[in-house]
Amino acid sequence: MHDVVTFGEGMVRLSPPGHLRLEQTHSFELYVGGAELTVAAACSRLGLSAAWVSRVATHPLGRMMANRAREHGVDVSRIVWSDDGRVPLCFRETGAMPRGSLAYWDDGDSALSRIQPGDIEWSFLADAKLLHVGANTPALSAAAADATSAALVHAKRHNCKVAFDLHRRYAGNIDEALMVHVDVLVGDAEDIRRAFGVEGQPEEAAAQLKERFQLDVVAIPLPIAKGVRSGVWTGIVVGDKLYTDRTYDLEIVDPSGARDAFIAGVIYGYVQNDLDMGLQYGNALAAIKHTHPGELCYFTEQELRDQIETTGRALKR
Amino acid sequence: MHDVVTFGEGMVRLSPPGHLRLEQTHSFELYVGGAELTVAAACSRLGLSAAWVSRVATHPLGRMMANRAREHGVDVSRIVWSDDGRVPLCFRETGAMPRGSLAYWDDGDSALSRIQPGDIEWSFLADAKLLHVGANTPALSAAAADATSAALVHAKRHNCKVAFDLHRRYAGNIDEALMVHVDVLVGDAEDIRRAFGVEGQPEEAAAQLKERFQLDVVAIPLPIAKGVRSGVWTGIVVGDKLYTDRTYDLEIVDPSGARDAFIAGVIYGYVQNDLDMGLQYGNALAAIKHTHPGELCYFTEQELRDQIETTGRALKR
Amino acid sequence: MHDVVTFGEGMVRLSPPGHLRLEQTHSFELYVGGAELTVAAACSRLGLSAAWVSRVATHPLGRMMANRAREHGVDVSRIVWSDDGRVPLCFRETGAMPRGSLAYWDDGDSALSRIQPGDIEWSFLADAKLLHVGANTPALSAAAADATSAALVHAKRHNCKVAFDLHRRYAGNIDEALMVHVDVLVGDAEDIRRAFGVEGQPEEAAAQLKERFQLDVVAIPLPIAKGVRSGVWTGIVVGDKLYTDRTYDLEIVDPSGARDAFIAGVIYGYVQNDLDMGLQYGNALAAIKHTHPGELCYFTEQELRDQIETTGRALKR
Amino acid sequence: MHDVVTFGEGMVRLSPPGHLRLEQTHSFELYVGGAELTVAAACSRLGLSAAWVSRVATHPLGRMMANRAREHGVDVSRIVWSDDGRVPLCFRETGAMPRGSLAYWDDGDSALSRIQPGDIEWSFLADAKLLHVGANTPALSAAAADATSAALVHAKRHNCKVAFDLHRRYAGNIDEALMVHVDVLVGDAEDIRRAFGVEGQPEEAAAQLKERFQLDVVAIPLPIAKGVRSGVWTGIVVGDKLYTDRTYDLEIVDPSGARDAFIAGVIYGYVQNDLDMGLQYGNALAAIKHTHPGELCYFTEQELRDQIETTGRALKR
Amino acid sequence: MHDVVTFGEGMVRLSPPGHLRLEQTHSFELYVGGAELTVAAACSRLGLSAAWVSRVATHPLGRMMANRAREHGVDVSRIVWSDDGRVPLCFRETGAMPRGSLAYWDDGDSALSRIQPGDIEWSFLADAKLLHVGANTPALSAAAADATSAALVHAKRHNCKVAFDLHRRYAGNIDEALMVHVDVLVGDAEDIRRAFGVEGQPEEAAAQLKERFQLDVVAIPLPIAKGVRSGVWTGIVVGDKLYTDRTYDLEIVDPSGARDAFIAGVIYGYVQNDLDMGLQYGNALAAIKHTHPGELCYFTEQELRDQIETTGRALKR
Amino acid sequence: MHDVVTFGEGMVRLSPPGHLRLEQTHSFELYVGGAELTVAAACSRLGLSAAWVSRVATHPLGRMMANRAREHGVDVSRIVWSDDGRVPLCFRETGAMPRGSLAYWDDGDSALSRIQPGDIEWSFLADAKLLHVGANTPALSAAAADATSAALVHAKRHNCKVAFDLHRRYAGNIDEALMVHVDVLVGDAEDIRRAFGVEGQPEEAAAQLKERFQLDVVAIPLPIAKGVRSGVWTGIVVGDKLYTDRTYDLEIVDPSGARDAFIAGVIYGYVQNDLDMGLQYGNALAAIKHTHPGELCYFTEQELRDQIETTGRALKR
Repeated sequence: MHDVVTFGEGMVRLSPPGHLRLEQTHSFELYVGGAELTVAAACSRLGLSAAWVSRVATHPLGRMMANRAREHGVDVSRIVWSDDGRVPLCFRETGAMPRGSLAYWDDGDSALSRIQPGDIEWSFLADAKLLHVGANTPALSAAAADATSAALVHAKRHNCKVAFDLHRRYAGNIDEALMVHVDVLVGDAEDIRRAFGVEGQPEEAAAQLKERFQLDVVAIPLPIAKGVRSGVWTGIVVGDKLYTDRTYDLEIVDPSGARDAFIAGVIYGYVQNDLDMGLQYGNALAAIKHTHPGELCYFTEQELRDQIETTGRALKR
Repeated sequence: MHDVVTFGEGMVRLSPPGHLRLEQTHSFELYVGGAELTVAAACSRLGLSAAWVSRVATHPLGRMMANRAREHGVDVSRIVWSDDGRVPLCFRETGAMPRGSLAYWDDGDSALSRIQPGDIEWSFLADAKLLHVGANTPALSAAAADATSAALVHAKRHNCKVAFDLHRRYAGNIDEALMVHVDVLVGDAEDIRRAFGVEGQPEEAAAQLKERFQLDVVAIPLPIAKGVRSGVWTGIVVGDKLYTDRTYDLEIVDPSGARDAFIAGVIYGYVQNDLDMGLQYGNALAAIKHTHPGELCYFTEQELRDQIETTGRALKR
Repeated sequence: MHDVVTFGEGMVRLSPPGHLRLEQTHSFELYVGGAELTVAAACSRLGLSAAWVSRVATHPLGRMMANRAREHGVDVSRIVWSDDGRVPLCFRETGAMPRGSLAYWDDGDSALSRIQPGDIEWSFLADAKLLHVGANTPALSAAAADATSAALVHAKRHNCKVAFDLHRRYAGNIDEALMVHVDVLVGDAEDIRRAFGVEGQPEEAAAQLKERFQLDVVAIPLPIAKGVRSGVWTGIVVGDKLYTDRTYDLEIVDPSGARDAFIAGVIYGYVQNDLDMGLQYGNALAAIKHTHPGELCYFTEQELRDQIETTGRALKR
Repeated sequence: MHDVVTFGEGMVRLSPPGHLRLEQTHSFELYVGGAELTVAAACSRLGLSAAWVSRVATHPLGRMMANRAREHGVDVSRIVWSDDGRVPLCFRETGAMPRGSLAYWDDGDSALSRIQPGDIEWSFLADAKLLHVGANTPALSAAAADATSAALVHAKRHNCKVAFDLHRRYAGNIDEALMVHVDVLVGDAEDIRRAFGVEGQPEEAAAQLKERFQLDVVAIPLPIAKGVRSGVWTGIVVGDKLYTDRTYDLEIVDPSGARDAFIAGVIYGYVQNDLDMGLQYGNALAAIKHTHPGELCYFTEQELRDQIETTGRALKR
Repeated sequence: MHDVVTFGEGMVRLSPPGHLRLEQTHSFELYVGGAELTVAAACSRLGLSAAWVSRVATHPLGRMMANRAREHGVDVSRIVWSDDGRVPLCFRETGAMPRGSLAYWDDGDSALSRIQPGDIEWSFLADAKLLHVGANTPALSAAAADATSAALVHAKRHNCKVAFDLHRRYAGNIDEALMVHVDVLVGDAEDIRRAFGVEGQPEEAAAQLKERFQLDVVAIPLPIAKGVRSGVWTGIVVGDKLYTDRTYDLEIVDPSGARDAFIAGVIYGYVQNDLDMGLQYGNALAAIKHTHPGELCYFTEQELRDQIETTGRALKR
Repeated sequence: MHDVVTFGEGMVRLSPPGHLRLEQTHSFELYVGGAELTVAAACSRLGLSAAWVSRVATHPLGRMMANRAREHGVDVSRIVWSDDGRVPLCFRETGAMPRGSLAYWDDGDSALSRIQPGDIEWSFLADAKLLHVGANTPALSAAAADATSAALVHAKRHNCKVAFDLHRRYAGNIDEALMVHVDVLVGDAEDIRRAFGVEGQPEEAAAQLKERFQLDVVAIPLPIAKGVRSGVWTGIVVGDKLYTDRTYDLEIVDPSGARDAFIAGVIYGYVQNDLDMGLQYGNALAAIKHTHPGELCYFTEQELRDQIETTGRALKR
């Protein structure tokens, strides 16, 4: 019995120390990420029972991805281990104004992109409350698109809710047919414009989609970059009404995974029928994620509650 | 013959590199601190003859604490080496707005907390100008409180001045009886409120205490945090009159030890009967301490004078 | 339903890089260990369902211990999280002939040493095949000794087998009354001599104990050190008969955890009624553990089988 | 056939990690620099054929300097390798407001300072478009001053243009006789004041010099420091007219080499008769140089063009 | 005009620090390798004019490969830069007896494997003395096999000699038709057996091949592993006669690239018609390569000559 | 009142991590050494009152040298701080058989080489038991040679004993006139041959010198290298009789400072009139020094005694 099941690709991120450029570095720091793995890890830390489903290469770095998920309490027993396909990599260097941070994906021919029909037996979703997938998963390959469809169909058939992240990189190639299964949609104005051609302010565009696809919730991340090192985070949710929250001033260490942390918070609220709390958790989580390295967010629920209750400035130094 | 003797606990600080969270790290950087050790080290660098008195475990990390003090020129020959008791540790992670930095103290059952009457022969204070202790020392244990009392009594008996830091964490448990021995008190409005229930603006509260306890000097650190990475430092001194000084805009690397650096500057001025100079040294020292890692401040007197004479903005890059 | 449950203390090991001495270092590398945690992790990697039971402080390093166990697939849901007590630490420096490696334990007042009757509900052992404890666990405190007794009594009552490691450091203080519950005993000639005053060759001493305590198995690690960097590993098992195995020539990187890896292999064979295979696995595991840093052994079952089938010299470089 | 030849000293920079002070560090990071080496490297990356001419000690660090230049595509075949003289070193620590960064040069008795007449056969300048030297080169020694004169005389004789950087540290000791050979002069108002006693706004002072020495171009770097971590960069060029460009807001990582990057951009435009483009390239290069460690700038021409076309704020994070 | 041209793939090697296993590491050290790049670099250091020809992705790591080759003096102007295809990676962990070192290649879909006919204009080989290729190059893809054939055909047509390494991993798939172009063959008894089914002692098998393919030279590396950390190196050459050399006792740090260093030495002798010297250089180079990390060998010709003249034991410590 | 005063140069050693070659490295680890500083530090750790006398540049690395000496308890108050002259550097890379370790000294124009007559007031030697100098000190410059003579003359005049190390690098240039002041001479057969042309077995050559210069003691280090990583250490002393000691089998980490550690042990015994104990201490110290990085030996007297009493093989792993 899972509260949340996520389906997608893990990846190993390789980053030069500090602000060294990729071409210049002589070493890499390793972090494990992947949008759906990250969402599952944050959900697990929030106390939900979470599983991450994927197809992973039997490679030390494949095991590393599973280990890291497991470290955060994620159930990895549904992973399909494969002897073919690669472990997705991402080379990421940290910028400083005016040079932006850059990510070079080396994720072709991944084990998940080679998924076969029947590799995953989706019937276990009958015992799950929510399935989360991002637009990146069906974009991997025709086979991955088929698997995503299968997952969503099974979820719906078994009364398992579906959350879907439009995901900036892949928003332009969303298969609209998937939307019929979706309950919780994640995206900002630009994602929505790319995916569905809907223009306008995020809350209006969200309201339009909500009606068009009969969604329960549209969750909208609204970060503002002031530089590579500083910015502001907030997010809003369009559900039965518009939910808004405080903004967080950020001294940014690493923004990776902040969007996924936000999603985890919203899902946490959604599965407990408390969108207001979910939004607050999501925003606080996203803010905290900016303050330490890596995609995966390290926090305790107590810290999160403290964060929500204090102002951003009343911090210990 | 010592200008300054300090009495208190050393500690070894263990910090993850950069902004890694404690739970997430795979390595620690080590720094040696402890409020009184730090004050002694800064006094020694300022040219005073300084000794640090403590009870330290015969453990490699205990020797490391003494070595680091000795490196700064501090006389460690008065340390009582013990086969019982622990070396105090402090795990400290660096935050970034909105997440504050966090310190987890693991300093229970320290060698100093097990001090025995007679372990330290305080008569050598007869040759010292000033003894400095913080509220943390008597707070360690009943035995440490007794030893602190004994030290202060001996100091006063031998015309050795006494400086006492209210120390935020322990300000609420100050034994007011100690105050009769004190000449120089360190604390801000909040410390004073916690320790003595005196409310009000720092200079007013200080003036009140000065009269009540017949103090020579109250030194008040007045830092303002703007974030984890930036802030402002100044301090003031209430002595024969109110001394104020410039403020320093700070790009903060590590605020640890800044308060102790400030105290060292004030003591330096106090033992030379030049509170104005002492305040300027204290503020400049505290400002410089924010700019490099560790509790102990690395500086030369020349650098300090240059700092005082330049504006904070006219810096070399 | 668990194949193996272990009960004991986790610890965080802090080691200087390379061959730096503790007094000399400016950083530490972190590893998670603790004999029973380590045994559970190796059992889990061998494919057994394993749980580690302990009382752990709600501290980032406490969570780190649980995370690391979880990373290896160990069930940590039986951990009792406590707000009191410390996270055990071990400072370990690596020697080189003629200077031996040294470990300084800083494990006083641990959360587990403060365990309360009833903190752990041992009835879940009814669903377990084997409980493993080492002599270090009852040695922590009277409370921990009581908890160990309770665990062994429950295990026996529910037909759960019991493995017990005499553990060099604590072999001299074994409560012989515990032996009545034990099925698998681990110790070498020196451990046996210290614990029970039985002298003689290890296989003979083991045979004597086997009869005296009606043991199923005595597992005997037989490492020979040639220096800090090289040595030889083998182990034997006295069960229904004497089982012996090849020896492994070792280029030693870190011997920590090798004994526990050996125990895991023996347990693996024991719960599957194949002591011969168990001994081979245990020896190969112990050999591999010497070749990489840390207490926890990183391996795949395939690598283990390859190791067993090849000679020690026919290695890839 | 070279587009650009530079003549001057390379150096190895030794910097403590992060913000550690030099006195405090236990390790150094190495970077290769030297103004003329740096200019040649940036020119080479811009697509020009560039050679760096120097006299370098046959020492591993000497080879390291040549290797690093070669890595950027610089022709190092004109280096005179010597068995006498040192490899210049520079110890540099990074400050934080109010403590400025500090450089301690240890470059006495360098191999280049011992250059002999005839060591370099300058006739190859007949095939070069431009020779670049900075005021630091003739300041090394009388021999180096003679070699610089010889180089400039040869350049002019063979219709090779000459660029000359007044270089803050040495601007006060410029031999004005060299100016007769110069076509492109680099310096800001302070450099010009020190070198020639000309006061006033940079563009006016530059115009005055332009006429006095019949220069083609005066390139003026105009950085503004806001702290050690932030500032603003722009530069202007006084040529056939006054060229100005946008300013760049900077999150500063390491300003080393920014001036040289700017010079490389101006030279790039100058040898292609497009000062406007050269200024834009120079400013963008200088801005990018601030964002990563080291003297040498790592960039692609595509990145540079992207930088010029975007605003400083529209960055990826 | 080149003395040596090599054709093949570069790669970036990612290795955990020390003896950490891949699954266990949190960082990687980077080294650039690739058999033909490595041979070219060593030839260049020996004073030959060397070029490395390849098809490389326009990626920071692609530029890193070219930079590293260039750092060693290799001409990289013949590289075909491509927007498609990957940069080959190799994850390599260091073992310790009995665990061997392991390499996981992630080199599928490389830029070179996608080479197109005409991408490289081989006519420049008319000005080269020798072309070196290994069996790994044609094994990449049909396209790479075609390119290899084209290269060898051009070489022979223009009187450029050809060296060919059977390369253990790919020896089993050699296209025997290529052998008609080859002058210098590299391989040991096992390579020869796999490639041509010829059994027997290496010198005999070599002599047989020499006749069969009308080779000038067969170079045979003969390392003996005693463990991961120690071994013995020698190699022999079958040319106009059998050349043998001393053996080197090795304290092994990293054997990567040793075979290629050996090849470079043999080529150096071959192009100068001094096989005896070439063999000595090759063996000394291979021995030195074992003593420092990375594929590329850092040495000076002077060091090499010193190595040849001293015994392996008379070393400075 | 000092037991031991040493006079000579400190230095900062810069070493690449692990086995990286100097040309290849991107970082350095720092260690403080200098033969006389090292001897003083080891003497201080043995419990003697020790001072290190030198002329040191007012530079962060100069302060670092003094700090490190002070950390070991050495009195540095006799240092003459100078604004001229350099801090001596030594670049040292670690070899592996057959490549020996290499040191590149960059110690020209040191502050000590510029010493002026009268800089040091040697009369304080009247309160010292022994002065130690090595042949490297007078070899620095004529001024340093004069200062060395002055020191020895003063020592003798005040009944302060003199120890002198022939020091391999400088043994060939010893001023024999100095020998008249010497009581304890350090050197092996090769040093003695170079210095005085005396051939033969070390104990015989030593006996000859003892008579010729009326020495009390000749101490002879007798290390045998088996490789860079392994070797054997012993030393002997020719005093009133021949003293010999056990040999130590070594797993070598860093041999730097081992000779100085040996000297410190011999001095320790000499000033206490127990050459037998001194030799044992010296050999044990030298052995331990091989097992950790750096010139300075980190040990406790207890460890030393344990080392002497155990055999080299009975080590903890």
